[in-house]
Amino acid sequence: MVNRVAIVGLGLIGGSLGLALKRAQGGELEVVGYSRNFQRATRAAQLGVVDRVENGLDGAVANAKLVIIATPVMAIKEILSQLGSCLPPGCIVTDTASTKLKVMEWAEEFLPPGLDFVGGHPMAGKEISGIEAAEAGLFKGCTYCLTPGRDTSPQAVETMVEMVREIGASPVFVDAAQHDYLVAGISHLPLVLSSALVFATTRNVLWQEMSRLAAGGYRDVTRLASQDPVMNRDICLTNRQNVMEWIDAVVGELQRFRRLIDDGSEELEEAFAQVQQARQQWLRERGYDKKA
Amino acid sequence: MVNRVAIVGLGLIGGSLGLALKRAQGGELEVVGYSRNFQRATRAAQLGVVDRVENGLDGAVANAKLVIIATPVMAIKEILSQLGSCLPPGCIVTDTASTKLKVMEWAEEFLPPGLDFVGGHPMAGKEISGIEAAEAGLFKGCTYCLTPGRDTSPQAVETMVEMVREIGASPVFVDAAQHDYLVAGISHLPLVLSSALVFATTRNVLWQEMSRLAAGGYRDVTRLASQDPVMNRDICLTNRQNVMEWIDAVVGELQRFRRLIDDGSEELEEAFAQVQQARQQWLRERGYDKKA
Repeated sequence: MVNRVAIVGLGLIGGSLGLALKRAQGGELEVVGYSRNFQRATRAAQLGVVDRVENGLDGAVANAKLVIIATPVMAIKEILSQLGSCLPPGCIVTDTASTKLKVMEWAEEFLPPGLDFVGGHPMAGKEISGIEAAEAGLFKGCTYCLTPGRDTSPQAVETMVEMVREIGASPVFVDAAQHDYLVAGISHLPLVLSSALVFATTRNVLWQEMSRLAAGGYRDVTRLASQDPVMNRDICLTNRQNVMEWIDAVVGELQRFRRLIDDGSEELEEAFAQVQQARQQWLRERGYDKKA
Repeated sequence: MVNRVAIVGLGLIGGSLGLALKRAQGGELEVVGYSRNFQRATRAAQLGVVDRVENGLDGAVANAKLVIIATPVMAIKEILSQLGSCLPPGCIVTDTASTKLKVMEWAEEFLPPGLDFVGGHPMAGKEISGIEAAEAGLFKGCTYCLTPGRDTSPQAVETMVEMVREIGASPVFVDAAQHDYLVAGISHLPLVLSSALVFATTRNVLWQEMSRLAAGGYRDVTRLASQDPVMNRDICLTNRQNVMEWIDAVVGELQRFRRLIDDGSEELEEAFAQVQQARQQWLRERGYDKKA
């Protein structure tokens, strides 16, 4: 199996993957880390997230059987363009970005023919970013999207499926374009909603008075606004049409609620009953009703 | 101090108040419960949330020094109209509803002159409703809004302040009209946003595929959609203008994000950085950064 893994980008996701893989494979595995920010790389080594760090991309990927790119989306383009010439033969490359279509295009553009790229997206995270927040159990029970390229070998796909299972996640194969549409609805739109809510409230002239009253509901609905701004920007800019389409959809729903409220309509209770039922069903299907 | 408390409405908030007051005052206090749903009242007694239940409103409030109305907002009107003739002299009446202006109007309309009404709103809760979810510690560390009426006696206000402190909460005095505006922003708007997000996603033709990918972010941003539909309807219908105004404000912010995304603007990162900073500052001020 994989004996040396290189992780490029040592934030929450890269760091957690390092910890999870080391826990799963023990002494069999060497994890080599690279970050453009060398201080962060040193910290990752101190925390035991990686076995050692390299201060060059070529040194980090030398002899690696798997290279995981765990940076914000936009940085992946440049990394792939640099990796093209220094990847060891037979190496598999994957990423962890929240959008997949652009990443798959860049992989096809920059990686040498015959090199196996499998796009990846673990549906896990927390609003705190950075290596200090990394934890081995982050992916336990989560869905892990995989988007193989057109020419990716079955062996490379199999290796990725094994890796995903090793860290406690469930692999789901999804086409890159469909991935980006689906994830725009359940992840990128909620991010924009959280952010719009923070702007609408904190810029109000009465925010000081409101801030004392805001409690658990406000905290949860705004949670995603605390995510890393560069990651958020990159997500929106590599998934523009989908995110805009979903914003339009939710604005339509907000206008419908506004009409029902304005009319004092009987349908308002029915609408709230429908969303309650839909969410409870989702919680049950995902097993969240037992966790919380 | 208060020796007999009547709680009208035995859901999450009424039940938790019963438990919290009994824990604070021990054997000194008798808590009498009333619910229109007698099965629920019996269950409350079984769970030890109240000492005994009555199947009539007049019996429940007999000899009570404090009557707490903890039903959805719209039900309070009828309860106050019935209570007007059966309240013991010197009794204090309060409520726990999420909107205050209508409640204060009804109290003035239906309660006899000289009877002390103090509006109340504990800024606590969870998305699970019902007596089974009640807990004594629900109000610990939370803000508890108090809105005395125009003629409320200082003694009645003092009693309410003591009660709030006994259950571990911090009293904040706020004018009813201002309360409704502020709470529309930090509580009712988030509820509508959560609900609109659930509609936009779960009604999409690809919801089955999306539902497998939806994870912790989706769960948190949609949390308030799981609240009781009748309570939600009542909140919106007793706070219509404010809720509509806040929907307009957040739609404006969503349109701004849409423009920044459409333009691929540099300002997008700046906008995400601003909301991150604003939310982190609120978390720090409220002490949430230490709790989570």
